[in-house]
Amino acid sequence: MKIIVDAFGGDNAPLEILKGSALAVKELGVEILLVGDESRILACAKENGITLENTEILHAEKVFEMEYDPRTVMKEHSDTSLAVGMKALAEGKGAAYVSAGSTGAIVMGATFIVKRIKGIKRAAIASIMPSDKTPFMLLDCGANVECKPEHLVQFAKMGSVYMNRIMGYESPSVGLANIGVEENKGTPLQLETYALLKEKKDISFMGNAEVRDIAFGVADVIVADGFTGNVILKMYEGVAKSLTGSIKAIFKKNVLSMLSYIGVKSGMDAFKKKMDYKEYGGAVLLGIAKPVIKAHGSSDARAFKNAIRQAVNCVEKDVIGEIKRSVGEEKDED
Amino acid sequence: MKIIVDAFGGDNAPLEILKGSALAVKELGVEILLVGDESRILACAKENGITLENTEILHAEKVFEMEYDPRTVMKEHSDTSLAVGMKALAEGKGAAYVSAGSTGAIVMGATFIVKRIKGIKRAAIASIMPSDKTPFMLLDCGANVECKPEHLVQFAKMGSVYMNRIMGYESPSVGLANIGVEENKGTPLQLETYALLKEKKDISFMGNAEVRDIAFGVADVIVADGFTGNVILKMYEGVAKSLTGSIKAIFKKNVLSMLSYIGVKSGMDAFKKKMDYKEYGGAVLLGIAKPVIKAHGSSDARAFKNAIRQAVNCVEKDVIGEIKRSVGEEKDED
Repeated sequence: MKIIVDAFGGDNAPLEILKGSALAVKELGVEILLVGDESRILACAKENGITLENTEILHAEKVFEMEYDPRTVMKEHSDTSLAVGMKALAEGKGAAYVSAGSTGAIVMGATFIVKRIKGIKRAAIASIMPSDKTPFMLLDCGANVECKPEHLVQFAKMGSVYMNRIMGYESPSVGLANIGVEENKGTPLQLETYALLKEKKDISFMGNAEVRDIAFGVADVIVADGFTGNVILKMYEGVAKSLTGSIKAIFKKNVLSMLSYIGVKSGMDAFKKKMDYKEYGGAVLLGIAKPVIKAHGSSDARAFKNAIRQAVNCVEKDVIGEIKRSVGEEKDED
Repeated sequence: MKIIVDAFGGDNAPLEILKGSALAVKELGVEILLVGDESRILACAKENGITLENTEILHAEKVFEMEYDPRTVMKEHSDTSLAVGMKALAEGKGAAYVSAGSTGAIVMGATFIVKRIKGIKRAAIASIMPSDKTPFMLLDCGANVECKPEHLVQFAKMGSVYMNRIMGYESPSVGLANIGVEENKGTPLQLETYALLKEKKDISFMGNAEVRDIAFGVADVIVADGFTGNVILKMYEGVAKSLTGSIKAIFKKNVLSMLSYIGVKSGMDAFKKKMDYKEYGGAVLLGIAKPVIKAHGSSDARAFKNAIRQAVNCVEKDVIGEIKRSVGEEKDED
């Protein structure tokens, strides 16, 4: 299997991406199509002693900078590694695509170059997140700032397929992110979505997921419009970062507190591992006709390898095929 | 100064409320008008040895239960302590009102019994929250699930007045809760509100407050529609509770980890104090013609005392008068 990798997306390009790709070749047995400036890739590999075994390079001279307007990825910036990789995916030069570049440009490129699955009205950014119990999927994390109820219903179905196929959850529970558990809570979007979801027989709708309970793992799939989903994602990250920073400072206060760390180190390490997004790979764009993984901008080699593994899983477990089939079912049902 | 206190709101009524009121009488030198079933109040006070010095009782036989529809507070349930207290405030029987009852009923009662300040289009639930730096105010935390840009502009102004008068912030910075710092981020609500806020000369608008930065104290006042504000509030509470639970479990793991706690206890205690909502009193309903404080449902005696202190501060610092004046200014300006 060949995975297309954007060598020039994110904060640590191209070094960590090359290292992560090399790890993936070695550990996962995949081939890699690295997209980006060939001479820079070769120089970086040589300088850092990275083998390019089972790795091809697809030359793309330019880089899609974070400050570019995402919509320019199709025309003005179609010569960037992000766009060239997307075209390679559309043309079947690889089975899946991984980039840590601009989220907006990845969404635009995936939607207009690779295209959506027929019948899917919006693609969603889906993130796997830690909880007190098992990890859950949150979608949409920001591809669509405004959504209609029928979009959220499709997100619920796509998220269920993913959590079943990739994470092995037998009948993933779906919760609608809301400001209370009662059926009459929220804006018209939540009210209408609730009414649609409770009629769906092919998902396990558990009702409203009270936002306060999300970090406790109240549902396996949390659906939200892209604005609300992005707020949930970023509050989770922000509060976790702020609190762990405070805890760290407490341990660093003096000799006694530093010594205290010894007694809790193993517990803290396990906790850090659970909270670490790098363990879960990247965010997946659900609803696109081929697997597209958006790696975290600050991904290191291990996070890239995990994002590539996630891409491999999506291909092997035929997530796209299953979404296509369930969208087909939906049509029959309606 | 006399403060009206709903003796039958929240999880710990009436005992903790009576204790908190007695503390307030003693420490703050206020008078209290306790609203609720007189015989139950007297029995509870006697049983627990609570003095009712400088405390009057306003009899109200019934309790507004959490499952009641908030809209019934004006008619069907106008004989509950929550409603009778609200009427007492409207009639001037006290200078401010504190209740830990149903948030929805407090919003409805305040809006339709006490009424809004002339010119204010929506009342907002405003909460003081901890951050890595100094505490900030988040509003609206859920009074209005849907808002218009002009409502958010009024929230910005009211929040600024409060943080200046009560918290002593000289020129409180105002941030619009959003999914990015760029001016073009968010839904039409955020885009239009941004355009209005940046023209306002009487507030210190710092632009969009990226949600990820909120816990780090990116602004002194964070404005949002009630749905988004409630999501932010509850994600903050939920993630903080989940993480502190995990940290606690790490310390409780074995003898060594328990011993480790000794070395960080003082730091942890200071951290807990900073994160404790009980320190900040309750949420204030801004935009209502008299001070109304919604205490946390799980408030203990100390939290009630702090909520009463907050009510006293609102009266002494004339928050309502200042909001009236600035709404007046707004009219002149427009």
